[in-house]
This record gives sequence, structure tokens and C-alpha cells, in this order.
Amino acid sequence: MSAEQELLNKLMRISPSEIEEKSFSIITEELRGRTFPKEEEPIIKRVIHTTADFEYADSLVFSPGAVKGALEALRSGAPVVTDTNMGKAGINRKSLTALGSEVYCFMADEDVAENARSQGTTRAAASMDKAAALGLNGIYAIGNAPTALVRLYELIEKGIVRPSLVIGVPVGFVNVVAAKELILSRKDIPSIVARGRKGGSNVAAAICNALIYQVGRIK
Amino acid sequence: MSAEQELLNKLMRISPSEIEEKSFSIITEELRGRTFPKEEEPIIKRVIHTTADFEYADSLVFSPGAVKGALEALRSGAPVVTDTNMGKAGINRKSLTALGSEVYCFMADEDVAENARSQGTTRAAASMDKAAALGLNGIYAIGNAPTALVRLYELIEKGIVRPSLVIGVPVGFVNVVAAKELILSRKDIPSIVARGRKGGSNVAAAICNALIYQVGRIK
Repeated sequence: MSAEQELLNKLMRISPSEIEEKSFSIITEELRGRTFPKEEEPIIKRVIHTTADFEYADSLVFSPGAVKGALEALRSGAPVVTDTNMGKAGINRKSLTALGSEVYCFMADEDVAENARSQGTTRAAASMDKAAALGLNGIYAIGNAPTALVRLYELIEKGIVRPSLVIGVPVGFVNVVAAKELILSRKDIPSIVARGRKGGSNVAAAICNALIYQVGRIK
Repeated sequence: MSAEQELLNKLMRISPSEIEEKSFSIITEELRGRTFPKEEEPIIKRVIHTTADFEYADSLVFSPGAVKGALEALRSGAPVVTDTNMGKAGINRKSLTALGSEVYCFMADEDVAENARSQGTTRAAASMDKAAALGLNGIYAIGNAPTALVRLYELIEKGIVRPSLVIGVPVGFVNVVAAKELILSRKDIPSIVARGRKGGSNVAAAICNALIYQVGRIK
């Protein structure tokens, strides 16, 4: 057997579940004994698993009781709302459906585009208005648009929506940091926020999945 | 007007296209005069824009002529194949369709699941077999599964598929680095690879979009 064939065989022999298990061991090892609150740890590790970026061990901020509240919400079938179809595609739909829940993204809806145009706002903000109008009081996972996060903040302020959790992990260079700090400024909003510029739809989905899997384990 | 209301107004007043423009200026500024080959620069910057991670300025490796070949392929309507529905959701479908092209992901297909089971391989690998069997010689954007990248390598070796470009940006801790180096070991495979552990479906989609937008600009 050639050296290359041997390498190919080695790379193909391991199953996705073995890869995941081994990956989490490596992450634990490289965190060198750092400890996290028990319910936050699987979330932090899954975000690192998704990004290979250990900065999230420091940048992820959890409001008190955020995870507990989110798990309770998921257990009672609370919906998940995201600001990108990419985030929606990354959430484990099968596991979420098993909890009696569903994931929504209104970004591509014609009425959202129309409302954004007529109100001079972004589709991301208008998609939050739509979710609130539909009475979706669940987990809001914002991985892309700071305007979605800001509008969500306003909707919470006005008492129009009451999320079980705000996942505030938009990524970027303009208004992203300020939008995240705005959410963090209100201690009464249950939130998981990636402080700073980093984040993304993949991070939003990873946090949702970590919560969903944690409910599965407790059940 | 309260200070908070002022902040909210400031955050909501800027349009997504202004945000993008300003973001790219900030990225250029923070790259502090670093220069890149002209056709690679928009790709590197869009990946940084997507991740807020400047490491990609060093980790992205382009095989000679990779971008030029990919642009030609896109101009003639070559398809895009990805290994995740998340990557598929992140690719700007409207712009791609305008080029007469389409994006495919076979990960959720029942026949792919069946073939993976019967052959003892991963669905990601089986999804590459399906793409090759369908004669999809276009851009292969691998943002998640190292096994997809390895199988793609094997299919290229056997002459079963001839991609216009391999985007090799799976993320992770197990076999990811080796799978990327395998692709890089063959200089005759046109590739864009994120060396190391980092990458992701978002990075794969960002590279595809940067290519698609570049075709749009040249047209």
C-alpha cells in the first residue's frame, strides 16, 4: 500500500461521531484546565468546535440564568427565530422538531422586503417586526445583522416581544460591537453575546444546537 | 432625545450597502498596506468581512491561476457544489442564477444516505460521489467535512471529476489539516485552501460569493 493510500484510508476510516468526540477532547485539552459554569461549558466548546477559534472562550458572555431559561423554553417547545437562512440551515432541525419546536427566518419573505422598503429600514429589522407580530416569544438567534439586534432591543423595550433568550452574535466591523453592548446593557434581557467583532450565522447555529443537545441529554 | 435613543438612531440609520462599504475600508486600513495579488484580494477581504478574523490574510492559499480559472468557469455557467446546506444557503443565489449557474448540495438526499450506509462511508463523501456521477465539473466548495475533501481528491485522481476549482476550507480538529494538505500536495488541482484548522461553511460561501461578485464586476 502506498503512503498516500495509507493516509487516505486513515482519513476516511473515522466516523463523524468519532471525529466529534475526538474534537471535543482536543478542545478540552487545549483549554488547559480552564473551567466554565457547567451549563455554559457545552455551548462554549461547541462554538470553538464550529470555528476552531479559542477566542470565544473569553468573548462569550452569558447573562445570569440565560442557559437555564433557554433550556426550559426549548423543553416547552419555544420557537427559534434567526436573521439568516444560513443560520436556519445550520440548526439541527431534526433534534429541534423532536422537542416540538420549529425554526423561523423571515429574511426572504416578500412582505418583509416590502415593509423594509416602506419604512426605510433593513430587511433584518423588518424580519424581527414580523416575528414579534406573530407572537414568537422564543429564542432569537442573531448571527448577521446588527440592525436585527437593535430592532429586537427596541421591541423588547416596548414590551412587544419577550424572548426566552437573545443570542447576540452578529459579525462585523460597523455597529456590531455597539449593538451587542446595547443588549448587554440591560441585565434583564436573557442573553448569550459574543463580545467584540466576531460571531456569525455559524456561531448562532452552534449555540442553538448546543442548547438543543443539552435539552436532549437532560430529558 | 435620550442618549440611548440617539445611539439607536445612529445604529439604524446606515444601510446594509453602506455598512459593507465601510467594513471593507476598515479591513483595508487594518491590513496596514499589505498587498495581495489583484484577483485574490477581494476574496481574502470578503473572508475577513465574514469572519472578522484577520488570520485568513495569512492562511488562505491560492494555487496559480485558481481565481482566473474559477471566474472563467462561472462565466460559462459552471455549477457550484457544496458539502453543507448551510454553505448553500450562504451563497448569493440571485447573483449566481444571473450567471446561468446553480448551487447543489446533496447531503440531505436519501440516496446519498443509503450509499453512505451501504459503503460504510460518510454522507459527505457519498455526496461527492453523487456530484461526480452527475458530471458536475464546476466549483467544489467544501466548508465542513474533511471526508468530502478527501473523497473529492480521490475522484480527481481517478479522473472521475475535474473541478474548475476546489475550495478546501473545512473547519475542525481531526483530519482537517491533513485533508487540506492532501489537496495542496497536488499543484495541478486548482484550489483555494484555508491552511490550518479554521474555515467553515460561512468561509466557503464567502469565497464563492467573492468569485461571483468578481465575475459580475468584470462583465
